[in-house]
Amino acid sequence: MTPFIAEILGTGLLILIGNSNVANDILKDTKGYGGGWVSITTAWGLAVFAGVVVAGPYSGAHLNPAVTVGLAIGGVFPWELVPEYILAEFIGAMLGSFLVYHMYKDHFDRTPDPGLKRAVFCTEPAIFNIPRNLLTEVTGTFVLLTAVFYFTDARLDDANNTTVGLGSIGAIPVAFIVWGIGLGLGGTTGYAINPARDLGPRIVHFLLPIKDKTDSNWNYSWIPVVGPLVGAAIAAFFFLILSE
Amino acid sequence: MTPFIAEILGTGLLILIGNSNVANDILKDTKGYGGGWVSITTAWGLAVFAGVVVAGPYSGAHLNPAVTVGLAIGGVFPWELVPEYILAEFIGAMLGSFLVYHMYKDHFDRTPDPGLKRAVFCTEPAIFNIPRNLLTEVTGTFVLLTAVFYFTDARLDDANNTTVGLGSIGAIPVAFIVWGIGLGLGGTTGYAINPARDLGPRIVHFLLPIKDKTDSNWNYSWIPVVGPLVGAAIAAFFFLILSE
Amino acid sequence: MTPFIAEILGTGLLILIGNSNVANDILKDTKGYGGGWVSITTAWGLAVFAGVVVAGPYSGAHLNPAVTVGLAIGGVFPWELVPEYILAEFIGAMLGSFLVYHMYKDHFDRTPDPGLKRAVFCTEPAIFNIPRNLLTEVTGTFVLLTAVFYFTDARLDDANNTTVGLGSIGAIPVAFIVWGIGLGLGGTTGYAINPARDLGPRIVHFLLPIKDKTDSNWNYSWIPVVGPLVGAAIAAFFFLILSE
Amino acid sequence: MTPFIAEILGTGLLILIGNSNVANDILKDTKGYGGGWVSITTAWGLAVFAGVVVAGPYSGAHLNPAVTVGLAIGGVFPWELVPEYILAEFIGAMLGSFLVYHMYKDHFDRTPDPGLKRAVFCTEPAIFNIPRNLLTEVTGTFVLLTAVFYFTDARLDDANNTTVGLGSIGAIPVAFIVWGIGLGLGGTTGYAINPARDLGPRIVHFLLPIKDKTDSNWNYSWIPVVGPLVGAAIAAFFFLILSE
Repeated sequence: MTPFIAEILGTGLLILIGNSNVANDILKDTKGYGGGWVSITTAWGLAVFAGVVVAGPYSGAHLNPAVTVGLAIGGVFPWELVPEYILAEFIGAMLGSFLVYHMYKDHFDRTPDPGLKRAVFCTEPAIFNIPRNLLTEVTGTFVLLTAVFYFTDARLDDANNTTVGLGSIGAIPVAFIVWGIGLGLGGTTGYAINPARDLGPRIVHFLLPIKDKTDSNWNYSWIPVVGPLVGAAIAAFFFLILSE
Repeated sequence: MTPFIAEILGTGLLILIGNSNVANDILKDTKGYGGGWVSITTAWGLAVFAGVVVAGPYSGAHLNPAVTVGLAIGGVFPWELVPEYILAEFIGAMLGSFLVYHMYKDHFDRTPDPGLKRAVFCTEPAIFNIPRNLLTEVTGTFVLLTAVFYFTDARLDDANNTTVGLGSIGAIPVAFIVWGIGLGLGGTTGYAINPARDLGPRIVHFLLPIKDKTDSNWNYSWIPVVGPLVGAAIAAFFFLILSE
Repeated sequence: MTPFIAEILGTGLLILIGNSNVANDILKDTKGYGGGWVSITTAWGLAVFAGVVVAGPYSGAHLNPAVTVGLAIGGVFPWELVPEYILAEFIGAMLGSFLVYHMYKDHFDRTPDPGLKRAVFCTEPAIFNIPRNLLTEVTGTFVLLTAVFYFTDARLDDANNTTVGLGSIGAIPVAFIVWGIGLGLGGTTGYAINPARDLGPRIVHFLLPIKDKTDSNWNYSWIPVVGPLVGAAIAAFFFLILSE
Repeated sequence: MTPFIAEILGTGLLILIGNSNVANDILKDTKGYGGGWVSITTAWGLAVFAGVVVAGPYSGAHLNPAVTVGLAIGGVFPWELVPEYILAEFIGAMLGSFLVYHMYKDHFDRTPDPGLKRAVFCTEPAIFNIPRNLLTEVTGTFVLLTAVFYFTDARLDDANNTTVGLGSIGAIPVAFIVWGIGLGLGGTTGYAINPARDLGPRIVHFLLPIKDKTDSNWNYSWIPVVGPLVGAAIAAFFFLILSE
C-alpha cells in the first residue's frame, strides 16, 4: 500500500465511523438516536483508532492536513510530500462522508431539520464568534499536535539492535487524546481540529442532492481550516523551541 | 484446546456477553434497563474482547464466518478449514444465546413486546430497505475485515529470533474496531456484521418455546448473512490488490 | 508486601472503588446520582484494575475466593494457601465497604429507602428466583474464570531467557472482562461473581449502625457465595479437560 | 524540555481538558451540556493521560503536588526538586484554567448560576462536612498514590541489559486509576485529589473579571489542599512499611 492510498483509506475510515456516528446520534429513527456527546466523542476517538491502525504502518496515518503541515514545520516530515498527503486526506474524507450519506439516506429523508442533516457532514459552532471559535480550534489542534510530537513508542535500540513495536496497540494513545479533546474542548465549536474532516464533507454536502437541504455554511467554513493549521504551527514552534 | 473447540468457546462467549447485554438493556425490570446504544456497543466490543482473549491462541479467534471466509479469500487462512470453523461459530453462537435466554427468562416473561424479545437474539433494521440495509452490512464488515487484515502485532523477528507477543492485550484492537463500527455504522441495521452472530441466535429464537413470541423475521434473515460475506470478500480483494 | 497483605490491599481497593460507585449512583445528593448501569459496570471494571495493579506482582491479585478456589482446582495455585487468601479477601472487602460507609455517611442519612442503602454493600436480584439467580452467578463466574485461565501475558522464554512483562498494562484484560460481564450478565442478579465482594460488605452492613436500615437479606446471601464457587469449579474442570 | 517546563505543560494539558469538560457539561448552550458524571470522570481520566503522555519522559509527570510530596516522602523523588515541581504544577494549572475561561467565555456569559461558573474552576462538596470531606480527599489521594507507588512498567533488566518501555501506552494505568477514583470516590467532594488542580484554578476564578461571579469559596479551599497532602503522606508511609 502506498502512502497515498493509505491516507485515503485511513481518512476514509475516520470519516466513515465518525460521521456515521453523528448520523446515528441525531437523525430520526436510528438505533443510536439521542446518544449525546459521550457517544460522539467516543466514536471519533475510535474512528481515529481505526484509521491509524490501518494506515499507520504505510503512511504514518496523519489523516489530517494539520498533522501533515505541523509535522513538516516541526521538521519530522518532508515538505515535498505535503501536497500529496493533503490531497489524499481530502479524497478519503469525501469518500467516507459520501458513503455515510448513502447508508443513512432513509434517515436523512425522515429528518425534517436541514441543520441536523448538515451537522452529519461538518461542524458548526454552538455560538458563532470568530475570535473565540478560532481560539478553540487553535487550542484543540495545539493539544493534538503537542501529544503527537511527544508520543513515544516502544522502540528499543540497544546494542543488539533489537526493536520492539507495539503493533496496533500503538494506535491507542492518539485515539485517547482525540477522545479527551472532544469531551473537553469540543463543547463550543464541535472540534473539527482537522481541515479535511470538516471541509471535505462540507463539499460533499454541497454537491449531494440531499432532500430539503440548507446552505453549506461557507461563512463559517474557513475557521475549521485556518484554526487547525495555526494550532498545528504553534505546536510545531513549541516543539522546535523545547527541543533545542 | 483444538481450533474447533476454541471457536465454539470464543463465539459462545461473544454471544453470551453481547446478547445478554441486549437483554439487560431492553427487557423489563433488568438492572441495566434503558442502557441505550452506548451500553450496547460497549458490551459488544467487550464481548469480542472476551472471545478473542480465550480463543485467540488456539484458533486465531475468527468468531465470525465473514472473518473466516474473508481471510481464506485473502489467502491467509486455508480453505479446507473453512467449513469446520463456520460450523463451530454457529454452534457457539447458538449455545450462547440459548444460555442468555435461560438466565433472563423471568425478564422475557415480563416483557410484553414480542419484537423486543426477538431483538435479544437477532438484528432488525430500523428502516427496512434491502439495498441500503445490505450496503450497511457490507460496509460494516468491510471496515472490520480491513482492520483485521492490517492489524500488526508486536512481533519481533530479529537476528536473535526473539519474539515478543502482547498476550491478552493484543485483543484490544479488534474490540475497539467493533466498538467503533457499532457506534457509527450500527445505527441503521444494528450491525450484525457476522452471519453466525445473527442467524445462529435467530434459529434459537425459532426453536425455543418463548412466551408470546413473534415470527423469527426470516424475510430479513438473509441480509445479515449475505451482506457480511460480500463485505468480507470486498475487503479481501482490496487487501490482495494493495498487497501486490 | 506479603501475599496476605497484597490480597487485603487489592480487595480493599476493589470494594472501595466499586461500592463507593454504587453509593455515588444511588444515594441522594451525590455528584454522580443516577449514573446508571454504564457507570456501575465501568467503575467495577476499573476497581478490578486498581486492585490488580497493586496486588498483582505480590499475590497474583485474586481478590476473589472464587478465583482462588478455581485456580486451586485447576492445579495452578497451591491448596495450602487457599484459606489465607480467602481470609485476606474478606478482610479487604470488609475494610473497603467500612470506609465507603464513612465517606458517604451524610448521603446515607439523606436517602430514605433502606433497600438502596443495603445495595451499596451487597447484591440483590432483580427478580428473586433461586435456580435462575444461581445460573447467572454460575455463568458469570464461569466467564471470569475461563478468561483468567486463558489469559496469556507477554512473556518470552526464548533461548536467551529474556522475559518481557507488560507491567501495570497487564491488568487491563481482567478489567475489560469484568466490565463486559457486568454490562451483559449483570442485569439479573447484579453480578457478585465473588463471594468476598458480596458477603464481606453484607456482614459490614449487618454490623454498622446505619440509620433506618433494613435486614441484610440473609435469605439471598448464600447464592452469591455458592454460585461463584460452582462457576469457578466448572471453569476449572473445563480447563483441565481442554488441557489434556 | 526541562522538568520544570514539562510539569507546566503537562499540568496545563490536564486542566485544559479537565476543566473544559466541566464547562462543556454544565455551562449553557454547549454541545456537551448535561453530559453528567460519566462524561466528567472519563474526561479527567483522559486529561491525566494527555498530561502524562507529554510530560512523562521529561519530568515523570507528577502534575500534582500531592504526587510530588508523596514520592518525596516515599524516598523515590528528591526533596530539593519539590518546590520547583509544585511551582510548575500551579503555573500549569492556572494557565490551563485561564485558557478554558477564554474558550468558553460566551457560555459563561449565558449561564446565570454563579455557582456553576465557579464549578468550572474548582471543586465543592455535595454536602459540606469538614471531617467527611477531608476523609474523602485523603482516601482518594491515598488510592492514587498507592497505585502510583506500585505501578510496574514494562522494564526488563536482564543479563543483556535490554530495556523495553511501553512508550505512551504506559500512561494508561494512571488514567484508569483516576477514572475509577472519580466514578467511585468522587461523588461527595468532586475529587480534587490534587492541590494544584483545585487551588490554581480557584485563584484564577478569583482574579478573572467573570460576569456575575460569586466568591471563590475560600472557606472550603484548604480541604482539597490538606486532604490530598495527608492522603499522599499516608500512602507513602504504607509504602515504606510494606517495603521493609
